[in-house]
Amino acid sequence: MMQPIYVPVDSLKEHCRQILRKASLPLEEAEAVADNLVDANLTGVDSHGVTRLADYLTRLENGVINNKTNLTVIRERETTALYDANNGWGQYAGKIAMEKAIEKAKKYGSAFVGVNNSNHFGTAAYFARMAAQADCLGIVQTNASPLMVAWGSKKPTLGTNPIAVSVPTHRHPVTLDMATSNVARGKINLAVKNKAAIPEGWAITVDGEPTTDAEEALKGFLLPFGAKGSGLAMMIDIMSGVMTNALFGEDVPRMYDDPAPQQLGHLFIVFDISSFMDVQQFKDRMDQRVKQTVESPAAPGYDRVYMPGEIEQLKRERCAAEGVPLSRAIYEELQRLGKKYGVETEDFAISLT
Amino acid sequence: MMQPIYVPVDSLKEHCRQILRKASLPLEEAEAVADNLVDANLTGVDSHGVTRLADYLTRLENGVINNKTNLTVIRERETTALYDANNGWGQYAGKIAMEKAIEKAKKYGSAFVGVNNSNHFGTAAYFARMAAQADCLGIVQTNASPLMVAWGSKKPTLGTNPIAVSVPTHRHPVTLDMATSNVARGKINLAVKNKAAIPEGWAITVDGEPTTDAEEALKGFLLPFGAKGSGLAMMIDIMSGVMTNALFGEDVPRMYDDPAPQQLGHLFIVFDISSFMDVQQFKDRMDQRVKQTVESPAAPGYDRVYMPGEIEQLKRERCAAEGVPLSRAIYEELQRLGKKYGVETEDFAISLT
Repeated sequence: MMQPIYVPVDSLKEHCRQILRKASLPLEEAEAVADNLVDANLTGVDSHGVTRLADYLTRLENGVINNKTNLTVIRERETTALYDANNGWGQYAGKIAMEKAIEKAKKYGSAFVGVNNSNHFGTAAYFARMAAQADCLGIVQTNASPLMVAWGSKKPTLGTNPIAVSVPTHRHPVTLDMATSNVARGKINLAVKNKAAIPEGWAITVDGEPTTDAEEALKGFLLPFGAKGSGLAMMIDIMSGVMTNALFGEDVPRMYDDPAPQQLGHLFIVFDISSFMDVQQFKDRMDQRVKQTVESPAAPGYDRVYMPGEIEQLKRERCAAEGVPLSRAIYEELQRLGKKYGVETEDFAISLT
Repeated sequence: MMQPIYVPVDSLKEHCRQILRKASLPLEEAEAVADNLVDANLTGVDSHGVTRLADYLTRLENGVINNKTNLTVIRERETTALYDANNGWGQYAGKIAMEKAIEKAKKYGSAFVGVNNSNHFGTAAYFARMAAQADCLGIVQTNASPLMVAWGSKKPTLGTNPIAVSVPTHRHPVTLDMATSNVARGKINLAVKNKAAIPEGWAITVDGEPTTDAEEALKGFLLPFGAKGSGLAMMIDIMSGVMTNALFGEDVPRMYDDPAPQQLGHLFIVFDISSFMDVQQFKDRMDQRVKQTVESPAAPGYDRVYMPGEIEQLKRERCAAEGVPLSRAIYEELQRLGKKYGVETEDFAISLT
């Protein structure tokens, strides 16, 4: 991006929170959404960051999503719970669901908590890290709008269904968060903006033909990360959508094109690591696993070897020190939203500009 | 392969079982290993099939693996158990661990069962299907010998660590089983035999350079299935190796080169689907998910769209009707082993030749 504007983490969260409060979200829901959005920016996943706020508010204004998430428990057992998010906020439903999963895993060793009738919940990593911060293993999956084809198909019946896995270490959690598409749709958007071609393998046209034309690709569909990415996306749709009684596959409305509740499903799997060994011992062993990895010699063309999520963690540390880098366009959009909803933090970045 | 020899499923199992019995395995362990090996052949995964029997027996003769798996429970809670396989048979330890996980999940909703100090356990799909056959979701992972580099590394600190996921349907389970390498090492072996080149992206030389020379590749290391495959392999090593107190990463001995106990770790995750919805309803929904997939139009160059594991299932049905196709070399090896161990089933395929 061009010269970014750096915004202190807390100011950015506060600004988003205030807007969401004015937009009639209950306090803890506004906090959950703001924290989740800013967290994505902190780790460099700008596509899931504060840029989404405007989209969310449009859906709220249009009555497509509810301002309040009236979570209800549909079925519950010792180590499982299924929530209906009542077309509320995925970020809030996800937080409550993960907290419930951690509580159950601490008590019995493991837990599976599902959510249906939900909306976009932000990054899966956000919730998986919550488990790691509680000395648990966290595995988080969600289904999504059908923007991707299955391997060998030309009709989209899959989302870019991501999975995140996180474990604790003596320092920060080690976290993998991956979509099952070859690349994020955002990269194709960017190529359109830059009038650049895209490599083969990213997308197909609406007729199912391979394309390197970014405009055609954007009208068409994403390709999965090979046959393996397709298989994973399918199993994630089954686990987080079919199994939770959410919509799944081609029936999920598209977030931007279809003004309809998404009725997404999420799945939160937690394992209490102390069930197998003392957590200190696990963290010592993780030190070894990290050491083996980052000290292994880099292949030609690479600077060094990274653990999953390490680059995101480095960005997080940098943002804490320097502020969150936002493009001027996003910054101004947030200012406009602030003005529109009448919040008093519209110059929220001023301290650093 | 050249004209294969077709062996009835039960005869092949019986032959392997008898050899393993003569090699001093207890009855139920011989059964578990034979069933698991033949099951791999049934689904076309010949690399994990009866071809392994000779390797296993060599390790047994050399005292590298124990004839009897004295499974002991190290830690246990309501929904978790960690087993020490005492350097016994991964196939047997895996079966017992999965049965325990299913039992616990049925009682409490979910379960995590780990195994350490184990050996090669066959295909992960074998165990994941056990869960599906009990109307549960099964997720199975294992670590393996370090034959693969992490993304950007030239030193192997990862196995081709596979993950399998299986769910029930009204017919057979839907099962994904994928290694995290770009291709199986067996494909490079085959290229060496055929004196063929391999595509770039399969492997690197022992010095970390990309190669299309199959001989160089075989001396070198496998490449992961992209950065995502590498990340998954790392998290699988952490979940099935670090977390279970098994060996992990570069410390796992190689199955063929190192005559040492592998001390592998496996992880079995089970969720009782009825915790979220009635199983009949889940299976109805799976019918829809399968229908959406297999009825979606094929992309140019593809015959049709398959569910994960569908091709393997078709092979399984064909083998049941026609017998298991074995190459003459493998068939003769099994005959030799039969003679060596003094079993009476050496003409086990005669009925079909």
